[in-house]
Amino acid sequence: MGKQLNNIKVIGFDADDTLWVNETYFRDAEQEFAKLLSQFETPNKIDQELFKKEMKNLSLYGYGVKGFILSMVEMALELSNYSVSNKKIEAILNIGKNMINKPVELLDNVEEVLKKLSKNYKLILATKGDLLDQERKLEKSGLIDYFHHIEVLSEKESTNYSKLLKHLDIKPSEFLMIGNSLKSDVLPLVKIGAHAAHIPFHTTWLHEKVSESVTNGKKYITLKTLKDVYSYLPK
Amino acid sequence: MGKQLNNIKVIGFDADDTLWVNETYFRDAEQEFAKLLSQFETPNKIDQELFKKEMKNLSLYGYGVKGFILSMVEMALELSNYSVSNKKIEAILNIGKNMINKPVELLDNVEEVLKKLSKNYKLILATKGDLLDQERKLEKSGLIDYFHHIEVLSEKESTNYSKLLKHLDIKPSEFLMIGNSLKSDVLPLVKIGAHAAHIPFHTTWLHEKVSESVTNGKKYITLKTLKDVYSYLPK
Repeated sequence: MGKQLNNIKVIGFDADDTLWVNETYFRDAEQEFAKLLSQFETPNKIDQELFKKEMKNLSLYGYGVKGFILSMVEMALELSNYSVSNKKIEAILNIGKNMINKPVELLDNVEEVLKKLSKNYKLILATKGDLLDQERKLEKSGLIDYFHHIEVLSEKESTNYSKLLKHLDIKPSEFLMIGNSLKSDVLPLVKIGAHAAHIPFHTTWLHEKVSESVTNGKKYITLKTLKDVYSYLPK
Repeated sequence: MGKQLNNIKVIGFDADDTLWVNETYFRDAEQEFAKLLSQFETPNKIDQELFKKEMKNLSLYGYGVKGFILSMVEMALELSNYSVSNKKIEAILNIGKNMINKPVELLDNVEEVLKKLSKNYKLILATKGDLLDQERKLEKSGLIDYFHHIEVLSEKESTNYSKLLKHLDIKPSEFLMIGNSLKSDVLPLVKIGAHAAHIPFHTTWLHEKVSESVTNGKKYITLKTLKDVYSYLPK
């Protein structure tokens, strides 16, 4: 079953779409947004423009629902040539509030795996979302006691993970990261000599997508279900 | 000169209005906002309503500029009875973007004190703002090398600080927190037996104000200037 990971001390978990559903809610929100603005443009065009706007604002707003809502409001003004109604802007704000208030829907086997692993490893939640959002979800999820703490990274790049390891006072070989994004949860870890396990989610945000040429030859684990991680760890 | 702090291992610094100017920018933004909406209400009423709106949205949006902008947009819709122009909403978004892009203005003696203390103590930045905002400010400030890491707390309450100490693996008596907010940087530390130093800033957000009866009899240090902390630490 591939290499054994014998020296792991800390396991980092991505949160959104690794422990619980998230991206699905963004897709739903984008659909609602396109419907609200359907008098001005086609859903396809609105989707494309919104993605461009989010990318343009990313360095200002970062990740998370709040920046997403702000980009939607800005987009609505521009796309409507400054004629969108106040009620529609309010509806956009409410799309955001509803996203924040969504219940937490755990993915398969999450609780069982965390419970088991937390007995032998220090578990941390490593996320680039909004801290308040993530704490709220962790609270609602009932998983909070399995984690030592939440680590919020402004970006999930190699340098951010290197700082995290320094902060945890462990060597790269003692860290395993598990997550659904090759770009954010896997490749930056491989680069600094830490371990990473990829567990795909059915939908991936365009910004997180990577081409096969990038992953080619890189050493990481692919998990079909979270439970598969057991077979890589000492009994 | 009061009690000596002999066992300190880690010193936590609040960021906004302790290391650099922040609240002033919010005050300026509020004034701009009131001016934009002056056709609908008096500045005083707008200020009051905006604060109420922020408090109402705090559990959803948390602290930081993005939640502040979202509250301003919502406020503008309601205050104008859904008649505010698209251009004014765009102007509100731009108030927010300008806040995010503001240069970092260091307060007196900050660099000198951090440089000196970083030789003998582990320094951390403990903030409840938005991580991306704070990292950006830290980057711009040129102070980044003095800090071991940034600790983002969703709230600055005793339980959050207790978690932080657990995470740092130190006793309360080994931690000193320095900040401008009695409510956030001082009282929660006193409560858990850690040390705290208060360094007042000339303006305080209403949400951070505490009455004298609350601080009465509490044991903490008050600093006139950041340099005054030297006299409490071993030579």
